[in-house]
This record gives sequence, C-alpha cells and structure tokens, in this order.
Amino acid sequence: MLKEAVYHRPKNNWSYAYDRHTVHIRLRTKRGDVQRVQLIHGDKYNWQTVGAELTEMNVFAQDALFDYWQAAVKPPFRRLKYGFKLIDGDDQLWLDEQGFHESEPKSMNLYFEFPFLNAADVFEPPAWVKDAVFYQIFPERFANGDPSLDPVNVEPWGGEPTTSNFFGGDLQGVIDHLDHLTALGINAIYFNPLFEALTNHKYDTIDYLKVDPHFGTNEQLKKLVDACHARGIRVLLDAVFNHSGNEWPPFVDVREKGAESPYADWFHVREYPIGVKDGIPTYDAFAFVQHMPKLNTENEKVQAHLLEVARYWIEEIGVDGWRLDVANEVDHRFWRSFRDVVKRANPEAYILGEIWHDSLPWLAGDQFDAVMNYPFTEAVLDFAVRGTRDGKQFADLVGYLQAAYPQQATEAAFNLLGSHDTPRLLTLCNDDKRLMKLATAIQFTFSGTPCIYYGDEIGLSGGQDPGCRKCMPWEEDKQDLELFAFFSGLVSLRKNHRALKDGTYAVLHAEDGDRTLAYAREADGEKFIVALNASKRKETVTLPIGIDVAANVVFGDGTIEKGKRKLKASLPPYGFAIVRIG
Amino acid sequence: MLKEAVYHRPKNNWSYAYDRHTVHIRLRTKRGDVQRVQLIHGDKYNWQTVGAELTEMNVFAQDALFDYWQAAVKPPFRRLKYGFKLIDGDDQLWLDEQGFHESEPKSMNLYFEFPFLNAADVFEPPAWVKDAVFYQIFPERFANGDPSLDPVNVEPWGGEPTTSNFFGGDLQGVIDHLDHLTALGINAIYFNPLFEALTNHKYDTIDYLKVDPHFGTNEQLKKLVDACHARGIRVLLDAVFNHSGNEWPPFVDVREKGAESPYADWFHVREYPIGVKDGIPTYDAFAFVQHMPKLNTENEKVQAHLLEVARYWIEEIGVDGWRLDVANEVDHRFWRSFRDVVKRANPEAYILGEIWHDSLPWLAGDQFDAVMNYPFTEAVLDFAVRGTRDGKQFADLVGYLQAAYPQQATEAAFNLLGSHDTPRLLTLCNDDKRLMKLATAIQFTFSGTPCIYYGDEIGLSGGQDPGCRKCMPWEEDKQDLELFAFFSGLVSLRKNHRALKDGTYAVLHAEDGDRTLAYAREADGEKFIVALNASKRKETVTLPIGIDVAANVVFGDGTIEKGKRKLKASLPPYGFAIVRIG
Repeated sequence: MLKEAVYHRPKNNWSYAYDRHTVHIRLRTKRGDVQRVQLIHGDKYNWQTVGAELTEMNVFAQDALFDYWQAAVKPPFRRLKYGFKLIDGDDQLWLDEQGFHESEPKSMNLYFEFPFLNAADVFEPPAWVKDAVFYQIFPERFANGDPSLDPVNVEPWGGEPTTSNFFGGDLQGVIDHLDHLTALGINAIYFNPLFEALTNHKYDTIDYLKVDPHFGTNEQLKKLVDACHARGIRVLLDAVFNHSGNEWPPFVDVREKGAESPYADWFHVREYPIGVKDGIPTYDAFAFVQHMPKLNTENEKVQAHLLEVARYWIEEIGVDGWRLDVANEVDHRFWRSFRDVVKRANPEAYILGEIWHDSLPWLAGDQFDAVMNYPFTEAVLDFAVRGTRDGKQFADLVGYLQAAYPQQATEAAFNLLGSHDTPRLLTLCNDDKRLMKLATAIQFTFSGTPCIYYGDEIGLSGGQDPGCRKCMPWEEDKQDLELFAFFSGLVSLRKNHRALKDGTYAVLHAEDGDRTLAYAREADGEKFIVALNASKRKETVTLPIGIDVAANVVFGDGTIEKGKRKLKASLPPYGFAIVRIG
Repeated sequence: MLKEAVYHRPKNNWSYAYDRHTVHIRLRTKRGDVQRVQLIHGDKYNWQTVGAELTEMNVFAQDALFDYWQAAVKPPFRRLKYGFKLIDGDDQLWLDEQGFHESEPKSMNLYFEFPFLNAADVFEPPAWVKDAVFYQIFPERFANGDPSLDPVNVEPWGGEPTTSNFFGGDLQGVIDHLDHLTALGINAIYFNPLFEALTNHKYDTIDYLKVDPHFGTNEQLKKLVDACHARGIRVLLDAVFNHSGNEWPPFVDVREKGAESPYADWFHVREYPIGVKDGIPTYDAFAFVQHMPKLNTENEKVQAHLLEVARYWIEEIGVDGWRLDVANEVDHRFWRSFRDVVKRANPEAYILGEIWHDSLPWLAGDQFDAVMNYPFTEAVLDFAVRGTRDGKQFADLVGYLQAAYPQQATEAAFNLLGSHDTPRLLTLCNDDKRLMKLATAIQFTFSGTPCIYYGDEIGLSGGQDPGCRKCMPWEEDKQDLELFAFFSGLVSLRKNHRALKDGTYAVLHAEDGDRTLAYAREADGEKFIVALNASKRKETVTLPIGIDVAANVVFGDGTIEKGKRKLKASLPPYGFAIVRIG
C-alpha cells in the first residue's frame, strides 16, 4: 500500500456534516492499491461502550491517480473519534492522527476527531436548488418590451453586438416572454445585472438600489418577480460587490475631492489624484479596468451599504438569491456577513459565487451555497465538443471534482455550458447540433443545477463577448424549434426524475483512448444509464445490468439491445441514449 | 517523481497570507524525491507584463514521508496566479489545477489562484505573543492570601488533593506572590477559571460575570490585573463556554420548569424532565458529565450573554485575552462572533483554544490565535521523557506540525509540557530532574510561546488530576531552588534572543535509532545550536558550522570542542547544550 498516496485531514471535504445527523468521512488511496478500508469510530467520551464500531467504506469516486473512499455515520451524541484500517490481502495498516501503524493503536487518544456536529456549522444549500433548472438572461439582449425606455443611441433589434452598443432589451420584454420560459420548462432565472449603470452589461453600477431606467423600475421588477413566482420560477440577481462603476457617487466624490473625500476609505487608492499611470489605475480595480474601482469591503460603511442592498432586493422585491460577481476577490469576512443577512431575509435564498477555479474555501457552509461550475464546463466541452479528453479523462476529472467538495456542494453546483463570459455552445460546436446535444445531455443528467444561457435553446450562435451577447430572435422562423423541443424534453425528463438530480453517480464505462462514456444515476429505486459517443463513428457500448430488468431508451438517438445481464447500446456519431432501467 | 505524493491545494496551510503583503505558497513531495521546485507566478490580469516570475522554493520542513517546500512572494497588486515546476535531474513536471503536465502549460488559465490578499482575512495573532512566557495558575492551589474567604470545609494548605476538596487559594494569594513570578521572569499568566462555581476547578460556572467569592471579587481581580500590567505581565482568563454548571440559573430554571422554561432552548435537551438515564444525561453535556450541561450557542440570547461576558472582562477588568475550554465542541460560527467582539474590545487580545488534536479549522485567522499545542507536548515527552521516540521521529513529527499550519500559527502556538489536565512533568520524569530539564530546554528553544505550569519550576510533583493540582509550597525548604534557577535562566535566555522565539528552525542532526538531536535557530544574524541527548549514556554529536565563527555554550551541562567547520558537542546522559554561534 503506497503510504504517500493516502490522504485524510479532518473537515473541509474530508470529514463534514452532510446534514444535522450525518457525518461523511473520506479517505484517499492510490488507485487500485487497497482492497478494503474500514472506518473505526465511536464517541470519544465513551469509546468502550458506545464505540468502537467498524463501518465499511466504499470507493465513491476515482481520478487518474486515486481512489476516494467514503462512509456516512450518524454519531448518537454528535461526537466522533475515528481511525482507518486499510486492508490489501494480508497487509493491514492503521491510520490515525499520528500516521500509520502496523498494528491497531492501543489508545484512541490519537484518533482523528470530528468534535461535535453543531447545526450552526452544517452546510445546507436551499433544498429547491437540486430541483432547479436555470435560465440565464442578459437583459439588454433578451427582448425589448417597452421602446419608450430605449437609450437614445439604440440600434435595431438583431444587429451585430459590439462591446458598447445598445438594443433596448428590458424587463417588460422578459414579462412578455414568460410563456417561452414556461414552455421550455425552466423554473429559475439568473439575471445579469439590472441596476443602473452606463454600459450595456451593467457591471459598472451607479446605483445599487435602483433598476436601470433603460430596463424599467423597481416596481416593474417586483411585478416581474411576482409573475415568475406565480409560474413557479425563482429569480436570482447579479451582485457586483467587488467593484462599483466609476460614476457611482462615492467614487465620483473621491475623484473630485481626493483624500479629503469622506468616501476616500471606501476604495483602495494608492495615489492621489485618482488617474491612470502606464495603463494602471492609481487605485485597485477589477483587473486593471479604470471604470471598475474595487470596493473596500472592510470599511464598515461600505459593508452596511452593500448588506442593505442584499437585504432590500430580497425582502422588498422578493428575489430568491444572488449570483456574486468576481466573488473570489472579495474578503471571506464580508461574505460571511453577507450570508447572515441574506439567510435572515430569506432562509431559502440561494447564494452563487462566480469562481472559476478551486472553490473549497467558499463552500464550507459559511459563505456560498454553490459556485459557477466552470471546471465541469471544461470537462464536458473537452469530451463532447473539443475532443481533447477521452471518456476516461472525463470520468477522472469529474471523479476528482466529486471528491474535492462536500456532497451537498456537488448537488447544488451551478452547471453551465456557456455564459455571457464565454463563446456560445453552438459556436464552440462549429454549429454541429449533434455535439451540442451530446454536451447538453451530460449537463442535464448530472448532479448540480443546469443552466441554459438564453438563446442556446433556439440555436443562437456567437463567439466570445461581444458575440455571445446577441439579441434573442423572436420570429419563429429564426428559432430552431427542433432544438427547442430537445431542450424542453431534457428539462422535463430531469424535472420528473429524482435519480437524474441528486441520485448516486457511478461510472460504467470509461476507457483510455475511447471516446464513449457511460454512467448510471440512481435514487429511490429508480435507475438510469446514460451512454454517450463523442466520436465521429458509430460505436457500441456493452454495459452490465441485472437479470430480468426492463430497459428503455427514454431520450436520445441511440438504440439498445438487451442481452443476459448486459445491455448493448448502439450510438450514432455524436449520439447518446438515456436508458431507463427497471 | 512520485506524483501520488505531491500535494497542494489553495488556502489553509498551503497558500495563505503571512502578512498584508506576503503570500506563502507550499508544495509537498515525497521525501528526497525531487531536487528543485520552482514557483511560477504572476498577476492573473497581466500575466505577460507583470508575470510570470520564477521563484525558487525551499524545503522548510520534512517528516517521515515528505519534503515540504515553501516560497514567499509579494504580489504587487495583491493577486496571484501560480503553478509549480518540479525538477529532478532531466525530469521535469509542471503542476497546475488540472494536474500534472509533461511540458509547460500553454495557458495560465488553469493555474492555481490566490485571488486577492484582503487585509480582513489575514491571520494576525497579537505580536506580543511571540515574546511571551506564560505561567499557568490553578487558583485554588496557588496561594491562600485571605483566609477569610476560605470555603467552610477548607483543609490545611499542602494536604493531599482530591477531586472535591478545597485548600483556600485565592486572588490575594496571587497578588502576594507576584515577586515570585517576576523573579522567574514570566510575562503572562493563564488562570484556570475564576468565576463563581461549586467545584474546586470552577469549570461548572454559576455566574460568568462574577469572580468566585472564595477567590475574591471583580474589583480585586482588576487590582490583580493592574498589578500584573505594572510588572509587564499579561493576564489570560479561562472561558468555559461549551457548557455551564448545573447551578447556573438558566439551567436551574429548565430543571424546574422543563420545556416551559424560557431558557429551554439555551441547552440541548433530548427528553424532559431533565435527568440521567443509564448513566447518560437526557441533555447534551460535556462528555456525559451531568453537572456540565452543554450550552446552545446557536441561541441568540445565549450568544448575547457569552459575548457580553467576553467583552466585560476585557473592557472593564482589563484582561488580555481568553483561553477557551473544550473549544472544539462549540460551533465555528459562535467563535467567529466571539473573535469580532474580543478584538473590538482589544485588538491585542490573545485567543487560545483548548484543542488537543489537529486544529487547522480554527487557525485560519477567523477564530483563534493559537491552540494548546498538545501534539508538541507529546513529541517532546516521547523524545526526552518516555524514550519512545528517537531524534529522527521527533524531528519528523515537529516537521509535520510546521507544515500543517500557517507560519504565524506555529509562531503563536501555546507550547506546554503539562497542565491541570495531565500528570506533572517531574512525575512523568520519575523525579529525574535531568529529563525534566532536557524537555524544558526544548520547550524554551522552540517557536511558540512556552507555558510553565505553576509549581513545576520549584519541583512540585503529582500524577493525573487530582494529583497534578497540589498546593504550591511557599516555604523555601520545600522549593527546589536549583530548579527555579534553571527555569529562570531559560526564561531569561529566551526573552533576550529573538532567534529562540520566532527565528528559523533547521534540523542539524536527527537519525534513526539515535537518541540525540540537534537543531539551529536563527534570526537577525543571531544563531543558536541546541544539542540534546535523550539517552542514558554520554554522547557526542558532530555539527557543521561555518569557518572562523565563535561558539559558546550559553546554557546546559554539555560542552563543545571546535574543529574546522565543525563543532563536537559532548553531552552527559540526559544532558544538553545551547550553543551561541558567532
């Protein structure tokens, strides 16, 4: 057994409360290196009588190098002391906080501890998130419902987007097209920023408490939220709290008065007067973007203002949560206060951070409920679209991600295949809808809440910003209705089956150099197998199943043939089959 | 290069702000497996012009299995994107968030991130802690300065301690003996609980806002604190916030009124009426101790009361911080609020948690400044006292601990060799003062603040509680004055030399099966070598030094002989030498 490969350290993703009664304990070993792992556990104050129990651990995830083992235990007094017994043939190893032992440690004093399962520390994303299918709307480009609000320099709907032009999208446009969303079947909207700002993307806030006048009014947003709620659709707004716009009054004041401004400490100014030297602002900014000065979220007045903003839109307007822009650059301390305020305003509010990289420090229950799951995006695109990752490499990356976070984070992850910050999916697929469907089939059969970027469902194309921010075409002949039916079918399938949402996930087929992939999802006695072919040739995949179980393709262009204890899936080029078992 | 051994994951002990300008980045590799590691780093928004830089990493710690590499960088815009280049002969490997690469990744997009160094998140223990030498006082047994306060059942001073008897120690006794502490040279006191309670140890609080009447009054404590401050001595109190005593009025009310009590939610009651069934209280308690009901620190009124307690003793009485009893069983959320209140009351207050096991989840800057460093205690006792750990095993465990925490946690760790919860050091040493001195020499030449348990310095003995809680003898003929001189000498040496406090630490000699050990401490051009012999035979240790440097034994019974570029230390059985170099 390779000792150097073995990893466990209490808390984080290695030992955590899954709910108010259950603790998940995990251990990492070299892939294929260890036959069995047992968790030895008990109450630290009553090891003799309450403990020690032995619980068999299971490999719940694998990546290229490692097996990840997990056991779930419910300590009767919410206290846990534990160690591991690793077994490989006749070899046995014990692991506790002191390291490895060749024989069972005589004392449990140096076992690992999960000292107490306090409810206040349990990471509990809102339950509804597991059932959500999101739809992202870039408001300036979704629909123009009230031309009287258009900016003076508005261009005709459907023109070529640039970084600075306007087409007049607004809230009334969204209200007018709620039927489209209901037909698609989504039950949550994520809006890019709605607050007053100068740019078309509105990430340069002027007033955090006011809907942009070109979009509408606060009252109209309330009307929109109410209309959404009546349809069972939740609404998430975009909180741009890392930086303001440069016309935000406090920043204007600092620009005018310099260090004398009462708002001087609201920013991070390195040098007065405020300006740009050698392309670098004399104050901290988002990236080096002059019109996005970074906010000093350590200043108590800045905190008070932003927390009031967080509260206002939830309590007064009824929104269901926040997506946090550039969330990783704001201090953790601020986000903890933010969570307190948001959850007090609505315990079911969803807090979604924009973080593109490893996000564990934000996903411990004290800050966010989820992050935008770009590592998942990349895994799917590499496998299904770019062809740069085979089935095994896809499964390995997904396995790594599962092991890297608490299970509730995986269940509430925000799984997107594109956004206002990336090229559109169809364009990445070189307009080949087969690839797009393949990628989307994975997205909708995975743990985590899927999000459709507006227009993807009717075949909108476009490259990197500004290309990905085209106007939504509303004439039926400009919409791909076949694609829409595909999306609405997938949405419906997912919504109706628990197994596809937070069911268990098991890789059934993933081999080196092989561009097919199959996995199973299972919950409450319901089981699905998803078989995918990311190659340009027709492929077959043979999959093990139980005896005498029914199997039917419920979605996709693949077909199946039932053998004894196995299933042969025939998949056209870039084809797939979602198979219901039993 | 063994890939399975390589570990890095952003934040925690792997990448953290050491101060407001400096980020420490660490990487783990198999011991002896990799020749060089380079950190590739730059600003994520300006990789081309600001970055990438290459910084050579150094092995700063080793344990039995691993080398731990570290680099310190000061990102000009406080943002950092980074990867690693591992070099072993002609082999090269690159590591980023996606894993290993055989050639340099073309894009920095998937490099690790330290997104922003926000001052609010920097872990900053009070600066004075590095310079502190603590003295722990168990107040009932230190000195009886006012017999008029004695409990009715008081026993004559110096009798055999039991779990329940009283000897009349009090605050006046401490005030009377401050000269003893000043002579010893300590500059901080940690008091076991002082608040009103029934037991002799006072861990069963009745009133969190009142000094126990058998000890004195709040006013007298203020007088004591002022007297200490006048002598440059800081004062730490014991906060027993995990549980109250069973005579605490809110618990009495719940016992009397059951679920109808307005305090019912202040505890975790599983069944009314409150009682004990099969030896287990019907409510959560410390361990299964009936008279220590666990507090519900999620209840806002409980929080408000305890936070007011935290504030009161600092602001009104002037104490310098808190030691937190059973700190690991209270929710993290409460401790974060606690830190806010304490640091607002006094930014220089010290927050010390009682945690015996791995403590990283409390040492990220948002909760504690330090924990009672029992893993260090065990390492020292195993090596110097029990003989169950050789020099190599000691160095490996210490190396592991260094790598397991941010550097500032190591610098502020509370290094004790005994307490009211363990047998006394001299008794563990079977009354052999040589062993006791050897262990203490390590304690006083290590990073972290040492603490002397009252009486150890004059040869007090005693086994596990209650034996370790004997009355302090004040007659000179009952005090070991030679031992006192040893302690005061070590205290003085440490206080006068930065190198022995937070200087760098490097192992010079630590071999399998060898019971000698040598390490160097260095800071500001000042260097010490500590050479120790934990065997019963005389031993010599040869140590490398520079040419033409002076070397003198400044403490200990060992002697040295200077050779060319080396030092031969001759160490008597259980002897040691602290050598000043240069």
